[in-house]
Amino acid sequence: MSKVRALVLERQHELALRDIDLPLEVGPGMVKIAIHTVGVCGSDVHYYTHGKIGPFVVNDPMVLGHEAAGTVVEVGEGVTHLKVGDRVCMEPGIPDPNSRASRLGMYNVDPAVTFWATPPVHGVLTSEVVHPANYTFKLPDNVSFAEGAMVEPFAVGMQAATKARITPGDTAVVLGAGPIGTMVALAALAGGCARVIVADLAQPKLDIAAKYQGIIPVNIREKDIVAEVDRLTDGWGADVVFECSGSPHAWKTIMSLPRPGGVIVAVGLPVDPVPVDIASASTKELRIENVFRYAHQYDRAIALIASGKVDLKPLISETFDFEDSVKAFDRAVEARPSDVKLQIRVAK
Amino acid sequence: MSKVRALVLERQHELALRDIDLPLEVGPGMVKIAIHTVGVCGSDVHYYTHGKIGPFVVNDPMVLGHEAAGTVVEVGEGVTHLKVGDRVCMEPGIPDPNSRASRLGMYNVDPAVTFWATPPVHGVLTSEVVHPANYTFKLPDNVSFAEGAMVEPFAVGMQAATKARITPGDTAVVLGAGPIGTMVALAALAGGCARVIVADLAQPKLDIAAKYQGIIPVNIREKDIVAEVDRLTDGWGADVVFECSGSPHAWKTIMSLPRPGGVIVAVGLPVDPVPVDIASASTKELRIENVFRYAHQYDRAIALIASGKVDLKPLISETFDFEDSVKAFDRAVEARPSDVKLQIRVAK
Amino acid sequence: MSKVRALVLERQHELALRDIDLPLEVGPGMVKIAIHTVGVCGSDVHYYTHGKIGPFVVNDPMVLGHEAAGTVVEVGEGVTHLKVGDRVCMEPGIPDPNSRASRLGMYNVDPAVTFWATPPVHGVLTSEVVHPANYTFKLPDNVSFAEGAMVEPFAVGMQAATKARITPGDTAVVLGAGPIGTMVALAALAGGCARVIVADLAQPKLDIAAKYQGIIPVNIREKDIVAEVDRLTDGWGADVVFECSGSPHAWKTIMSLPRPGGVIVAVGLPVDPVPVDIASASTKELRIENVFRYAHQYDRAIALIASGKVDLKPLISETFDFEDSVKAFDRAVEARPSDVKLQIRVAK
Amino acid sequence: MSKVRALVLERQHELALRDIDLPLEVGPGMVKIAIHTVGVCGSDVHYYTHGKIGPFVVNDPMVLGHEAAGTVVEVGEGVTHLKVGDRVCMEPGIPDPNSRASRLGMYNVDPAVTFWATPPVHGVLTSEVVHPANYTFKLPDNVSFAEGAMVEPFAVGMQAATKARITPGDTAVVLGAGPIGTMVALAALAGGCARVIVADLAQPKLDIAAKYQGIIPVNIREKDIVAEVDRLTDGWGADVVFECSGSPHAWKTIMSLPRPGGVIVAVGLPVDPVPVDIASASTKELRIENVFRYAHQYDRAIALIASGKVDLKPLISETFDFEDSVKAFDRAVEARPSDVKLQIRVAK
Repeated sequence: MSKVRALVLERQHELALRDIDLPLEVGPGMVKIAIHTVGVCGSDVHYYTHGKIGPFVVNDPMVLGHEAAGTVVEVGEGVTHLKVGDRVCMEPGIPDPNSRASRLGMYNVDPAVTFWATPPVHGVLTSEVVHPANYTFKLPDNVSFAEGAMVEPFAVGMQAATKARITPGDTAVVLGAGPIGTMVALAALAGGCARVIVADLAQPKLDIAAKYQGIIPVNIREKDIVAEVDRLTDGWGADVVFECSGSPHAWKTIMSLPRPGGVIVAVGLPVDPVPVDIASASTKELRIENVFRYAHQYDRAIALIASGKVDLKPLISETFDFEDSVKAFDRAVEARPSDVKLQIRVAK
Repeated sequence: MSKVRALVLERQHELALRDIDLPLEVGPGMVKIAIHTVGVCGSDVHYYTHGKIGPFVVNDPMVLGHEAAGTVVEVGEGVTHLKVGDRVCMEPGIPDPNSRASRLGMYNVDPAVTFWATPPVHGVLTSEVVHPANYTFKLPDNVSFAEGAMVEPFAVGMQAATKARITPGDTAVVLGAGPIGTMVALAALAGGCARVIVADLAQPKLDIAAKYQGIIPVNIREKDIVAEVDRLTDGWGADVVFECSGSPHAWKTIMSLPRPGGVIVAVGLPVDPVPVDIASASTKELRIENVFRYAHQYDRAIALIASGKVDLKPLISETFDFEDSVKAFDRAVEARPSDVKLQIRVAK
Repeated sequence: MSKVRALVLERQHELALRDIDLPLEVGPGMVKIAIHTVGVCGSDVHYYTHGKIGPFVVNDPMVLGHEAAGTVVEVGEGVTHLKVGDRVCMEPGIPDPNSRASRLGMYNVDPAVTFWATPPVHGVLTSEVVHPANYTFKLPDNVSFAEGAMVEPFAVGMQAATKARITPGDTAVVLGAGPIGTMVALAALAGGCARVIVADLAQPKLDIAAKYQGIIPVNIREKDIVAEVDRLTDGWGADVVFECSGSPHAWKTIMSLPRPGGVIVAVGLPVDPVPVDIASASTKELRIENVFRYAHQYDRAIALIASGKVDLKPLISETFDFEDSVKAFDRAVEARPSDVKLQIRVAK
Repeated sequence: MSKVRALVLERQHELALRDIDLPLEVGPGMVKIAIHTVGVCGSDVHYYTHGKIGPFVVNDPMVLGHEAAGTVVEVGEGVTHLKVGDRVCMEPGIPDPNSRASRLGMYNVDPAVTFWATPPVHGVLTSEVVHPANYTFKLPDNVSFAEGAMVEPFAVGMQAATKARITPGDTAVVLGAGPIGTMVALAALAGGCARVIVADLAQPKLDIAAKYQGIIPVNIREKDIVAEVDRLTDGWGADVVFECSGSPHAWKTIMSLPRPGGVIVAVGLPVDPVPVDIASASTKELRIENVFRYAHQYDRAIALIASGKVDLKPLISETFDFEDSVKAFDRAVEARPSDVKLQIRVAK
């Protein structure tokens, strides 16, 4: 165990930037990373404000943060693709490589996954972390630490875009322009869509999304999304609909959005079961895909950022110093509609 | 117009075997078929008992029946793959070949489809019918008219099995052992499943299904289906779950049945929206497929019957003479649990 | 029949801009289009220089040209999605909608397809043409006629990108930087690839391709493509390899380019069978896809151009007046490495 | 190291049943299995007759055999799904679970795989072996050891059938009725095909295959396979063609066998590159799949055998006692056309 400084959620509503003991031995196949930048995720904020997410309850002090980039400072035995000094970002979930799901290539649905900042596992809003090299990805020179720390939420969008099985030139709809909806929209565009119609109630969120070529914003306070999709697709419907709002309300009309033979990808997670109109889904023979985090997306996400096809920098609303971490979280609690992503720079 | 004898639904609750005028001119690309055998479908019975199905209302007298086999008696201009004397069965739905859906190969979801015995389109419980040759399929010598008239309901099972994208050796669950559930189970077995676990409340239905090798019956009055699937799959879950009951109740526990990365195929159509647990579907990254009738399944269904892989004969519970058509419908209304399919032999 | 001015290939080596009788009646489901711009395709040039392509021999005078855009001037009965004045581009191949391949959604492999400027079918280097409305596509206001006439060759690239089943963030290799190779590279980028490595011997072609973000040019006179792909993919290999050179030589080393589980899409057509190393393809479990023209790509191609994701304008090397059509063809025969696409403006 | 009795290939042409030192410590995640039955594979025989296969050369004495079933006699730490006394069969290839290919779910194309009886790795024609529990599969009570030892070659057929992505009711062609061709044919039938047309020159092999319902034998000494497939599919072609002969000759006409949009699965491995007619493959937009051993097929193969859908027992031509192992190999060298699989019973 080593004593390191970290942002600790002591219990619901109580954050402290203080020293804590964390294990930092570098075993075989592991690397030690000096953390540079960490993004603030809605789940971190939710643990702060509610002390739990579903069955995951914060019973003991827990370090927050799971969207991280940094620099390799030590390399364990048998690691060949990374060396000291490499700038990297990390997948926060570590599966059992020998589980049945992992062996089938679906490590994200392995029930044995441990995930940063999910009780009782500590997160990485701290100076250093030890992580499996296989889940640590080198950043190209033209990808900054700040962008590296955006790979995690973007990977969620990539997983959704991948599950959709986009055909080049598709038209997509994204319901919900929060951080995840926006990530999904960018991944859908990078992943082959010609146009992405983004629907939300909050104009500031739509304004940010609308700066990207190919995104068509629809403020559903002003316009009916079904009518708009109908108009924009000559009555045919969208090829893909990404449900990113998590709102039961969205499910009431969602079947009117896709074309015959189209797909709905459920990204937002409603707390309770939602009413789904199977009869309407049947008439169009819709496919409904569900996603859980991501698998095999980090290298792809980094490649799209490095090639210039995806620019996540405009989504970083503000960067806080590590010493101001609690301020960053309190700002996140405000949920300003013009904030997409807040980041904390851990490195000096 | 020609005057022919037919089973006419005059209005709700009133059937008559009487003469009616039907168009029997054989245009280009069409064939005339002397009807031999017609199966009684749940939808035929529902029009009889309720006078409507959803938006489709019987306002005028309508000939019933859409599961038919017969003999070609006249061939229109340009038809090359059929000749007089060919024994055939027919798809009851005729799409617009130039619609967008048809051109994409999904003619079943073409909104312009006309379908036998769906108001205001007449069915085929009559002596002769004229039909597009492209939707008329030759029966091999070893496939009887009775089996030919079973192709239509079996095609529904084939569509479900196709949408599931079965991997050879899959384990499937079928919820609901009615005629469609049984057809789905047989199509799933023929389509690559090693085992199909069929769940129902009615023991006589399960007994019929259980006669087929590879089907494992589970009476859900006696056993918990989730526990049974868990036991039979060593805690992993089923690769494919076919929901054929149409019961909202089934959707409450369905997410516990598939394995991580598995698929649910919704075949049964609940009248109202059903509660779907998206969060549980997400954890396993399930795919949910919806089916609507069938497309491109007739030749495949016939090939499986002809090769001996699928034996539908045990599902024909009783055959009525044409003169006893009303009796056949009244028997169908009884809904005896041991009845799978009743047929009417139109030919003498 | 109507007498119209057209570029006629009288026989091998002999072109004439002269009057010719063409059928211009507008039947049901058809539209008449005033041609505006026509691209010169390698196949047009090949008929000019060789008088035939494989089994297709020019025995009678034939109008050339099949990459066309124009304006609707007359609309046949039953056409609802087009009106007089609409700016459009057209698919040159017309299938039999009732053929087995067409009904399955693969109209491009229907042997009954008739294709513009493929003997004995006339092309469209003329003032007007009558065409099925279903194969005529409206151009958005921000897509020019010149771009509209590029949709045909771009659709070939789209078909290849679609068959590849690109996963977002893939790395592709394109062998051959001719017009088709370049179209494939752009479609692959628009269709989800992060990077496309384009290999050719001709530096001017690579220079044109390299202007697009995401394209990495490799001059195979100077560098070994296998070593380059290895270096750029950290020894893993490319996700997709598009063979667009049609050279038997390319097939000798192609198996070294894809990653395990990767795909090769054969776009270039070698005249004779090529040696394929099945044993190496097996070791990596490669998938090899073949493409033939395109199906269902025009609307998708237009959507990508309209949204700004694909810019084909830099590929139009020079535009000729209709009166200079023969000059355009003689320039095409030169095959300047800096020429990608030559176009002829038919409209005044 | 423990001294055990084994069938050792001392060098090319020289087999000995003798004692040899093998490592039999049971580490974590491992199980020790008492071998019961081992099948003789063509590769075992090839090492015997040629001393090598491609780059794999027998430089040191090596135990042969990799198609094995037996009984668990010891269970290592952490193994939960197996216990002493379980009857099992084993995958002979062990990948690195942390390789890139393994993590993607394609462990069979992991270059780090070690495979029984592939120099310098010993095989299992011996009394006991220690193996990873994850690659050891429990046999149901109704699956014999002899059938268990057939799972390995059948898994090759399963991999081919899986890669084909069979649609229920497909018609397949298998070129070559050797052991692998026959396994592929049975897997294709179990995996959803209605009919499998099997082509070979050797009538005894065809006679064995023809005993299975759904297999149509074609002796290509007597009949033209292209004409036969044409006749049996009404001129449309086969949905899937499995090339299992490994003969360059087969590749000359193979493009005439599939339907438009069909698939060729290359199972047989020609020593040298074969001439492939890309132009013909293009006209039909064929997909060509390549397979390498198998991944994730053992549990599926066992499920199909246990459910009664696949009966491999008729393919076991003769069983030898362990003491007669050399005789078994000498009989295999004879390559009698009526021999499909020879097995050796190691257990007393």
